Amino acid sequence: MELLEELSVLIRDIARGMPDAVERGREICLGADGTPTTQIDKCAENVALSLLEERDAPLNVLSEEIGFVDRGHDRTLVIDPIDGTHNSIMGVPLYTVSLAVGRESLRDVEYAYIRNLVTDDVYSAVKGQGSYHNGRRMRARQHSDPDELTMMLYLGCGAHPDTFKLLKGCRRTRAYGCASIEMCLVADGAADGFMMNSEDPSKRIRVIDIAASHLILREAGGEVFDLSGELMDMPFDIAARQNFLAVGDSSLKEVLL
Amino acid sequence: MELLEELSVLIRDIARGMPDAVERGREICLGADGTPTTQIDKCAENVALSLLEERDAPLNVLSEEIGFVDRGHDRTLVIDPIDGTHNSIMGVPLYTVSLAVGRESLRDVEYAYIRNLVTDDVYSAVKGQGSYHNGRRMRARQHSDPDELTMMLYLGCGAHPDTFKLLKGCRRTRAYGCASIEMCLVADGAADGFMMNSEDPSKRIRVIDIAASHLILREAGGEVFDLSGELMDMPFDIAARQNFLAVGDSSLKEVLL
Repeated sequence: MELLEELSVLIRDIARGMPDAVERGREICLGADGTPTTQIDKCAENVALSLLEERDAPLNVLSEEIGFVDRGHDRTLVIDPIDGTHNSIMGVPLYTVSLAVGRESLRDVEYAYIRNLVTDDVYSAVKGQGSYHNGRRMRARQHSDPDELTMMLYLGCGAHPDTFKLLKGCRRTRAYGCASIEMCLVADGAADGFMMNSEDPSKRIRVIDIAASHLILREAGGEVFDLSGELMDMPFDIAARQNFLAVGDSSLKEVLL
Repeated sequence: MELLEELSVLIRDIARGMPDAVERGREICLGADGTPTTQIDKCAENVALSLLEERDAPLNVLSEEIGFVDRGHDRTLVIDPIDGTHNSIMGVPLYTVSLAVGRESLRDVEYAYIRNLVTDDVYSAVKGQGSYHNGRRMRARQHSDPDELTMMLYLGCGAHPDTFKLLKGCRRTRAYGCASIEMCLVADGAADGFMMNSEDPSKRIRVIDIAASHLILREAGGEVFDLSGELMDMPFDIAARQNFLAVGDSSLKEVLL
């Protein structure tokens, strides 16, 4: 966990040191998710690899730009240097670095660490030891009233038509554009669930987006399902994409799927 | 403007001094928008009235809890002590105090001041003098590509079915749950527009929610329309509610309405 914390601080400092890049991003390639993102992703990956070398850490790396780097170990560090890229370009204080350590897939993740790069809020979990927000134990809602739901929904252009029916039945719907924070809000008991139902497979979630928050939510008492209602799992494969439903109260699965 | 700045800082400090109330809100009345909100609204209104007395300021007051307080002047201070109440309860760093000074309606607002109560980002405008984000001049997008829109949409349970059609045509849709910030993102050129189309009249926007951000957007080169395409106006009346479309590039009106 110390390694993950250290790495998250290094990546935060990279992000904070790039205001010009972000400003340029707003002027030149807003909407393209272009240069500034790639720059920061690449920088973050380089920093991660250097730190692992320096500490002689027994970890492979999986990240967006470099893909899978096999350093000859059993466990892999899964990095999403900036989750919520477009928020960072827009100046919305909802974007994070998301770090997880596991072996082969989502369900064997052992360590999770998410830092909001603006507010420095930290969400973390160790498998079997609960999850924490700035050191405070988090507990997901265990009794959700189906008539009073606060849901986060995927609302991109790929959104399935059922999404609108669901939205009409919720008390509140949010789309914050940062999956890691949206998952942590469910873990923290601040919202009932987060659902992605995209008709367009290329818009669905990747394992790097969800590796950390998946453990954090489960350690807070919540669960993540695929849309057939099975427990969700995803291999550590940068190409894999999936729809899902994350909830605090598992009985919501019957209501929402 | 000095008065608005001073008031915004006082209200921020009230909000920051109420972590226990917010925590209780999360535990006890999440979803009800109950006690903590009312407490902070009332406190903020009292502080505003005291400050106006103390400074002998020639302003009436319009606010949620007290309604219209006629202090015998031509101009009125319109206060929304917390815009984005549910974000504040959820722990999402997107809620503001929103202050405006005008005479009778939205279109004659002369001063506008919005402060994010977590990040201290400030958005302000004086009529005829442009609008500013932390001292930097803001300019709304003047050329939006209809195929690449980043829109904020009202997505509550009252959302009109046309909302989903619109959403499917946008590159990105967000629902941040804080109208003042969403308007300022359009003013800042970070998004193309913000639209509320609620079938349920009780969910539509109130003048206190939009008095400040309306001027800020127009001073940045944007415009706000009602859904018949006319320039939007609203009386300083706490009971009035309306749907609207806010855009940087006015030609988007033809595309979106």
